[in-house]
Amino acid sequence: MKKTENYFVIGIDGGGTKTVGALANLEGEILREIYSSSTNPNKIGFELAISRLKNLISKISKNKKIKIAYLGLAGGLERDEEKREKIKKELQKFFNFPIVIDGDQRIAFRAGTDERDGVVVIAGTGSIAMGWKEKKEAISGGWDWLFGDQGSAFWVGKEVLEEIGKALDGRRKSFRLKDFVLKRFKIKQEKDLYNKFYSQNFITQVASISKIVDELARRGDFFSKKILIDAGKQVSEMAIAVIKKLKLENETFPVVLVGGMFESQIFKKKVEKEIKRISKKSKIYLIEEKTSDWSSKVSV
Amino acid sequence: MKKTENYFVIGIDGGGTKTVGALANLEGEILREIYSSSTNPNKIGFELAISRLKNLISKISKNKKIKIAYLGLAGGLERDEEKREKIKKELQKFFNFPIVIDGDQRIAFRAGTDERDGVVVIAGTGSIAMGWKEKKEAISGGWDWLFGDQGSAFWVGKEVLEEIGKALDGRRKSFRLKDFVLKRFKIKQEKDLYNKFYSQNFITQVASISKIVDELARRGDFFSKKILIDAGKQVSEMAIAVIKKLKLENETFPVVLVGGMFESQIFKKKVEKEIKRISKKSKIYLIEEKTSDWSSKVSV
Repeated sequence: MKKTENYFVIGIDGGGTKTVGALANLEGEILREIYSSSTNPNKIGFELAISRLKNLISKISKNKKIKIAYLGLAGGLERDEEKREKIKKELQKFFNFPIVIDGDQRIAFRAGTDERDGVVVIAGTGSIAMGWKEKKEAISGGWDWLFGDQGSAFWVGKEVLEEIGKALDGRRKSFRLKDFVLKRFKIKQEKDLYNKFYSQNFITQVASISKIVDELARRGDFFSKKILIDAGKQVSEMAIAVIKKLKLENETFPVVLVGGMFESQIFKKKVEKEIKRISKKSKIYLIEEKTSDWSSKVSV
Repeated sequence: MKKTENYFVIGIDGGGTKTVGALANLEGEILREIYSSSTNPNKIGFELAISRLKNLISKISKNKKIKIAYLGLAGGLERDEEKREKIKKELQKFFNFPIVIDGDQRIAFRAGTDERDGVVVIAGTGSIAMGWKEKKEAISGGWDWLFGDQGSAFWVGKEVLEEIGKALDGRRKSFRLKDFVLKRFKIKQEKDLYNKFYSQNFITQVASISKIVDELARRGDFFSKKILIDAGKQVSEMAIAVIKKLKLENETFPVVLVGGMFESQIFKKKVEKEIKRISKKSKIYLIEEKTSDWSSKVSV
C-alpha cells in the first residue's frame, strides 16, 4: 500500500444556483458528492458564503486525509484576487490542508479539453467567456445578475417577465409564451407574479423560465425563438471579445461551451455560428454538465 | 378645549428607498417626522418589513392618542389585497388604533390635487402609473425592481451599469458617461464595480447613478440624453396604458407627476409630451417630493 493511497482531493464548483462539492481519490475517482445552495457572495453576502463553504468542506473532508481542496466559485472572483485571498484566509482558519480559490471558469475549461490555451464560454444561470493564451488571460461578461449575465438563463427569464408584466398591464399585446409561463407557474392573478418571483431564491426561479422558452421555441413559437437568438448573440459577443483580446482569430484553439443554456439547440447554434464567423479554425466542444468530474480533474 | 384636540394621525410613506413616518394633528400640521430604511417586502422580506413598520409606528405614536394610521407602501401592494390585509393584521396586534394599508400611489396623487379622479405617474427609485375614474381603478407598471420599474432611477442606473460592464470587457466602445460614473464612484479597478453595487443597499446605490446621467445630459452628452429620453418613453407608456384603460383620452383630468426622476428636465419633457399627445385636455401637475405633507393630507 502506497502512502498516497490514503490521501484525497476536494473539488468544489460554486455556480449561480447551486454548489457541488466532491471528494476524489488521487486517481480522480469520485467517492463522495455533496450539494449545497448558492455560495455566490454577490447574492447571499460574504459571511453566509463563507459559512456555507465551511460546512460543505467539513462534510466532504470528514474522516479523510485531504491533500488539497480546489474551489472554483461564482461571483466575479475571476476579477478580484483580493477577494479570493480573503476567502482562502477565512477558510484556512478551519482546515489544515491547502485551499485554492479560483473563478469557476477554469474548472469548466478543463472539463472540455486537455489543452492549456483556449476559450471557455459559460451560459448557465449566469454568463461569461474567459480565455488563456500563453501567460495572458482575458475575460468578458460575468458581471453577475444585477448588471451582467446577458444571454444567461436568468437574463432570458428576466426579459420574459418584463414582457409579461407589460402585457398584463396594457403596455403591449399579449403573446403565447406569456400564457404558457403563467400556466406552468400556476399564476392566476397578477399578484401571484410577485409572490412567485420575489423570493430568497429569485435567481434560480427566474432562470427556470428559460426552459419553457426553449420548449415553446421548439414548437415553432416566433417570440420564444427570437429571445433565444438574442441570448445567443449576447453570449457570443462575450466569446468574440475574448478571442480578439487574445488575438486568437486566425489560430487553432479549443472553445469549450458549458452550461444549461446550451441544451437549447437554437441558442447553441447561434453561439457557434457567431464564433465560427470570426475564428474559422476554432474547435468547438460542448460538454455535458457533470460538475464533480471537472472538479476532480482540476484538483488532481 | 375640544376633545379631538388630544388626537393625532399617523401617515407613513414607504418608497423604494426610504420610509417616512409623520405625526400630524387634526388640522394637518406635522409635529413629528421619523425616517426609516426601506420597508418594501419584495426587497427585504415580509418579516423584516413588518418589524421595521412596527418600530416606526411605535416611535411616532409614543405618548400620543392616535385616531388613525394611514400607510402607503411600496412593493406591489396595489395589486395584492391579501397582502395588505396580512400586513394590517400583523400590525394591528401591536396597536389599538385603526390601521389602513394602501399602495403608495394614492398618497402621491392626493399630494397633487383635490380632485377625486385622475392619474398619478410615479418615477422615483421605482416607476408606476395609477388612475381612478368613478369607481374604476387602473394600474400599469410597478412590477418592482426585478422585472419592472422601467424608466425609474433604478432602471436608468442598471442600463448604464450594463453598458459600463460591456465597455470595460471589450464588448463595446467606451463612452464619456462611463468615465464620469467610474470617477464619481471612485472605481479604479474592474472588481470595484462589484464591490460598489452588490450590497444590501443595491437598489438605492444603482438608482443614484441617474443623477449623474442627468448632470452629463445637461452638459450636452448625447448618450446620457438618450437614456433619459428612453426612460421617459417607458414611463409615459405606463401613463398612457392607464389613460386608455380608464377611457380618459378626451376628458379633462389631472395627471400628477411625482418622484426624483422628474427633476430631470429632459425626462420630464418627454413624459409630458407623450401624455399630451394622447390626451390633449389633461392637466399635468408636478409636485415636489415632501412626503409627510401628503401623508397627513390623506390621513386627515
